[in-house]
Amino acid sequence: MVQAKYDVLGIGNAIFDVLVRTDEDFLVRHGMTKGGMALIDEARALAIYGDMGPAVEMSGGSAANTIVGIAGLGARAAFIGKVKDDQIGRLYSHDIKAAHVTFATPPAADGPATGCSYILVTPDGERTMNTYLGAAQELTPGDIDPAEIAASSIVYLEGYLWDPKNAKDAFLKASTIAHDARRQVALTLSDAFCVDRYRGEFLDLMRKGAVDLIFANEAELCSLYQISDFDAALTQLRNDVALGVVTRSEKGCVVAVKDGVVSVPAFPIGKLVDTTGAGDLFAAGFLFGLVRGAGHENAGRLGALAAAEVIQHIGARPQVSLKELAKQNGLPV
Amino acid sequence: MVQAKYDVLGIGNAIFDVLVRTDEDFLVRHGMTKGGMALIDEARALAIYGDMGPAVEMSGGSAANTIVGIAGLGARAAFIGKVKDDQIGRLYSHDIKAAHVTFATPPAADGPATGCSYILVTPDGERTMNTYLGAAQELTPGDIDPAEIAASSIVYLEGYLWDPKNAKDAFLKASTIAHDARRQVALTLSDAFCVDRYRGEFLDLMRKGAVDLIFANEAELCSLYQISDFDAALTQLRNDVALGVVTRSEKGCVVAVKDGVVSVPAFPIGKLVDTTGAGDLFAAGFLFGLVRGAGHENAGRLGALAAAEVIQHIGARPQVSLKELAKQNGLPV
Repeated sequence: MVQAKYDVLGIGNAIFDVLVRTDEDFLVRHGMTKGGMALIDEARALAIYGDMGPAVEMSGGSAANTIVGIAGLGARAAFIGKVKDDQIGRLYSHDIKAAHVTFATPPAADGPATGCSYILVTPDGERTMNTYLGAAQELTPGDIDPAEIAASSIVYLEGYLWDPKNAKDAFLKASTIAHDARRQVALTLSDAFCVDRYRGEFLDLMRKGAVDLIFANEAELCSLYQISDFDAALTQLRNDVALGVVTRSEKGCVVAVKDGVVSVPAFPIGKLVDTTGAGDLFAAGFLFGLVRGAGHENAGRLGALAAAEVIQHIGARPQVSLKELAKQNGLPV
Repeated sequence: MVQAKYDVLGIGNAIFDVLVRTDEDFLVRHGMTKGGMALIDEARALAIYGDMGPAVEMSGGSAANTIVGIAGLGARAAFIGKVKDDQIGRLYSHDIKAAHVTFATPPAADGPATGCSYILVTPDGERTMNTYLGAAQELTPGDIDPAEIAASSIVYLEGYLWDPKNAKDAFLKASTIAHDARRQVALTLSDAFCVDRYRGEFLDLMRKGAVDLIFANEAELCSLYQISDFDAALTQLRNDVALGVVTRSEKGCVVAVKDGVVSVPAFPIGKLVDTTGAGDLFAAGFLFGLVRGAGHENAGRLGALAAAEVIQHIGARPQVSLKELAKQNGLPV
């Protein structure tokens, strides 16, 4: 196995976030399911945005947020995802490159605009996402460079890739190349509703060994196995994948392997402002720990630390140096 | 005089803010004058942006920020400014309308892109702005609707309007209409370098009575009269304009009329994060107090409160309800 060029390469929907603080009524009025990610078309995007208050914009996208976090901890990271060559797409490309992430996916020259997620943040800090995929729909297997995949220690994929029409094939291509190169493949289940859409396919990926590591939160895990008992779901997960990492909000996380489980507490926070990116940044810290050989417990601590940073402000990208933050907290970077 | 439709109507450059936290070295490397607003062309915008870290975007523009603050305090407010009909222009239009501001200026169909300011925020909280005017250049006297101007209790104008090629004429047209309708005209001096570019014209506006109220900070006031002694400059200001309001950062503000001056302390803050919009929001609170007949001292307090809110987070638009904030602090709204 040749020396890796990247510690982690992520593949995901490139999505620009439009964030606004709102009250619970807004969600009710627009028939939104709080805490979820709903796919919307352009007409609904206009209806929601037209009713939203003044917003703040920043780059997002689940796997992209994770990759930015990994780069912020000091690892070598790359991202594959599709924007359009439009104003928002150029902002997006700037931000991810400026975060020291290699991003070489050519933007779409025509077709739908760069994807956007309209994110409502309620006073309790919960976020409810409404995603217009836009140009993210245009990601195809042709955007997967075999040499780049084979040169990445871990390939990290988001479950949301099952939504655009060709991204799943890009995902499967990347997974095969990675395994042929004896690399690891990680998947986040992304969202409980996403799991509900693709449960059979996700389970199949796990059981046939197309993925080695699963990230999930409690709701996603329970949705995957369609049971409400967390421990029973965890037992099933341990049978289905080599390494499973389940986040439990303020209860911390559980790292599960065939032989047993390790629990890691959440990192204490001052005030919960916005949960957007919590799972993404947890995955960033954990994957960073993993590639640096920190052990599962320290990897969980790094995940908890990165998640704690991102939920104390609006938006899913870190506002401080995660590397400095980890150092200040005595974690290995 | 007919009943006013708007308490305050603002005219300014419609500018989208691209904000990033950076170190002092960045300013040095790019030859920027810390704390100032520099006009840049597209080539320099690309050079600066290409070197900037991951950013956060939100709508800005000096007079627009003020008008949004006034609406947030509960007054009837309108804005005139020019964006292009592009993605960023549509974000901009959304945000100001969503803030309950009447905004009816038609966007430019072609020509340069919506204006952007690349704002570097250093660890001390100071902001350094680099503004690409873009479509703001396209504002002309034709965008000034005489009926709307005549129906506004106060017309508020930014000194930055002297920079685009035709906006000055729009400014002068609005001032004349306002005075013919026996309305008040307010001007912010905007920036010490802006004052340096247009000192003679600004003094002329004041001395011939084209403006009734001047907002300035210490640096702008001293630049206006080209003297370093604050009290001497203030004395001159009192001779030149009916009402002058000078902000002095943590020293609060001074409200100056022919008969004397009133000092109002700054509002206490927790942590200074980003001074972007401090002067704009001060003007919002002060003008709100003025139109509500709160008296100069309470108007100054409202200004101090609004400024304190905006400097404790990134960006020049309030993140909480200013009306609620004022109520909580026992100020008249």
